[in-house]
Amino acid sequence: MRTTVGIIGAGPAGLLLARLLHNAGIDSVVLESRDRAYVERRQRAGILEQGTVDVLREAGAGARMDREGLPHDGIELRFDRRRHRVDFPALTGGRSVTVYAQTEVCKDLIALRLAEGGPLLFEAEALAVEDAETHSPRIRYHHQGRESVLECDYVVGCDGFWGVARKAVPETLSRAFERTYPFGWLGILADVPPSHDELVYARHDRGFALLSMRSPSVTRAYLQVPDGTDAADWAAEEIWDELDRRLETDDPTWTLRRGPVTAKSVTPMRSYVHEPMRHGRLFLAGDAAHIVPPTGAKGLNLAVGDVVTFARALALLREKGDPSRLDAYSETCLRRVWQAERFSYAMTTLLHRAPDATPFDDRVQLAALDRITTTRSAETDLAEAYTGFPFDEPQ
Amino acid sequence: MRTTVGIIGAGPAGLLLARLLHNAGIDSVVLESRDRAYVERRQRAGILEQGTVDVLREAGAGARMDREGLPHDGIELRFDRRRHRVDFPALTGGRSVTVYAQTEVCKDLIALRLAEGGPLLFEAEALAVEDAETHSPRIRYHHQGRESVLECDYVVGCDGFWGVARKAVPETLSRAFERTYPFGWLGILADVPPSHDELVYARHDRGFALLSMRSPSVTRAYLQVPDGTDAADWAAEEIWDELDRRLETDDPTWTLRRGPVTAKSVTPMRSYVHEPMRHGRLFLAGDAAHIVPPTGAKGLNLAVGDVVTFARALALLREKGDPSRLDAYSETCLRRVWQAERFSYAMTTLLHRAPDATPFDDRVQLAALDRITTTRSAETDLAEAYTGFPFDEPQ
Repeated sequence: MRTTVGIIGAGPAGLLLARLLHNAGIDSVVLESRDRAYVERRQRAGILEQGTVDVLREAGAGARMDREGLPHDGIELRFDRRRHRVDFPALTGGRSVTVYAQTEVCKDLIALRLAEGGPLLFEAEALAVEDAETHSPRIRYHHQGRESVLECDYVVGCDGFWGVARKAVPETLSRAFERTYPFGWLGILADVPPSHDELVYARHDRGFALLSMRSPSVTRAYLQVPDGTDAADWAAEEIWDELDRRLETDDPTWTLRRGPVTAKSVTPMRSYVHEPMRHGRLFLAGDAAHIVPPTGAKGLNLAVGDVVTFARALALLREKGDPSRLDAYSETCLRRVWQAERFSYAMTTLLHRAPDATPFDDRVQLAALDRITTTRSAETDLAEAYTGFPFDEPQ
Repeated sequence: MRTTVGIIGAGPAGLLLARLLHNAGIDSVVLESRDRAYVERRQRAGILEQGTVDVLREAGAGARMDREGLPHDGIELRFDRRRHRVDFPALTGGRSVTVYAQTEVCKDLIALRLAEGGPLLFEAEALAVEDAETHSPRIRYHHQGRESVLECDYVVGCDGFWGVARKAVPETLSRAFERTYPFGWLGILADVPPSHDELVYARHDRGFALLSMRSPSVTRAYLQVPDGTDAADWAAEEIWDELDRRLETDDPTWTLRRGPVTAKSVTPMRSYVHEPMRHGRLFLAGDAAHIVPPTGAKGLNLAVGDVVTFARALALLREKGDPSRLDAYSETCLRRVWQAERFSYAMTTLLHRAPDATPFDDRVQLAALDRITTTRSAETDLAEAYTGFPFDEPQ
């Protein structure tokens, strides 16, 4: 089989890239190791930046998002029993975010891809990327019981942190940057309307809590838990009790709505960046190249930024013969990636309690929150970063 | 001897407080353990915030500062071979800072104090503050070979981190917050005009460097050095060579001017806060209550904020019979103190290289500097914090 762009992975990055290329008249093949049901079910992120929303709409993939997504014009910071709303449009000149789960984005893009007849192979496991340094890179993959080769002009690895694409970059040319955190997030889904109409980020002496939502009838919530925590060790009532404690406030109108917990899992926290994000004709996108802790809600949006950058750069080369943006792919993406890494790290540090936190650290956290919630410049900095870093700006 | 306000310490806090009280018609006695020559010679800070400049002027202590001080409308951030100027007035609506050494502030205030005939006793060593919980606190001190007692209505401890005032707060009521850093600053004075007309804060893989000045003909410069460094181990030429390396830039117009080094010393870095800052009729001000690492240039300015808060609060009580601001002294000061602690810690972390810094940490530092130097909100946040937190705002 032969294609212009071989895409490994049918997560949001790979699926959106296929759509963007299709719209630009560029053919591609998507290989996904899992089956369709799995891809459409896996719970991931749920906050779309303004830029992501715009890209999905422009790509003709925004119809259901526009109907069912929940536009959010702010978040709440809760600390020291206080509630403070960060008003995104007022601070950023009109930008906001949309709550629409990654699974729904994937369902929409899969339906579009299959409708347009573009090759999207499920249970097609990429085994290796070969000849990335040449003009004819190849993907060896396993599908329907046999090994095949996909001949490409370009390969884009959208196959996540554990994927094979990144392994095709020689170690001598690779540099990995990493930070782990001594805590994770215990996340739940619950069949109960969210207790607040915007996300609540809570800093508490007992640890961080986040109250979010999947839909007007489904609550998503998270608790900071020690590394190595087993979700099975937390009964639903214990989780609600702990959320209640960490969300405490002097505001008498506040109530936490409890309901049946339908899913429970623990997510470890990690920061990771692989440099460069390009090797010859192999391009890395999304989690294949970088991981952020979820505190800044940046993971999905970074992946979108990467594939937008690639698709625009390839279109420029094919339409105008100008390779400059494709050549600058790694540099362009990495600048945005490092801003997201910085922000995700800062938000994590601002709101989580490290196991070895000193009373000095606690006071500095509270002073930082005091600063953000009383100083327009600091609050604007947060709002601008949360609603998104610009995609695809050549440096 | 009897006075309304007994002041321990003739540093800038104690001396300015005596001046402010004098102007408000309130008598005080200043006790200083060292002799006058020592006080007028010790090298400390040199950056006066706009609010500090305003206070010194209003107190009638700004004449020489206005003649000889150097108004600075910005600082330079240098990193990754780049130079970026932070324009204070443009970002803060007109605020700036003034370079005028703490020793000069002290000389001016001592001359005023002696001219107005107010008691200022040198070589008067405070031994203890007693009866702070009563209406008649006392300072036991040693002067001219014998022990005496100063009877006061109020005692203000401006006697620095190692002073006796803080010890009068019972341990059961005290809480100390502390952070030490695994590096210090090797500082020099050199008889050579400064190489740049504003301060240069440099982040470098070899460590932080700061290029400052004492006057148009005297350079002040600092190098981050490992904890425990002996200034004697650094020859003048080695210091200049290292400054040259850490200040490297692609700007071909840059040259480091070298000259004879006239003083050399190592300052350890520490963050420290004592809560509360008041016990009965004993009030702590300046380094007696809090220490910041010098990176944010906040130490002297915090001390000024404390004594301004005290003087205004006492005047309000005496003129209007309103004790509310005196009662709120600790809370009012601490909110500003913690903002300064937060900022000083953030600036230190932004610019210094920790001995255990990972490549991830380095990239996050560079991303943070990239953010500050390309985003107006982030740059404004820094400029507003650097030029000063408001004094004496009741919360």
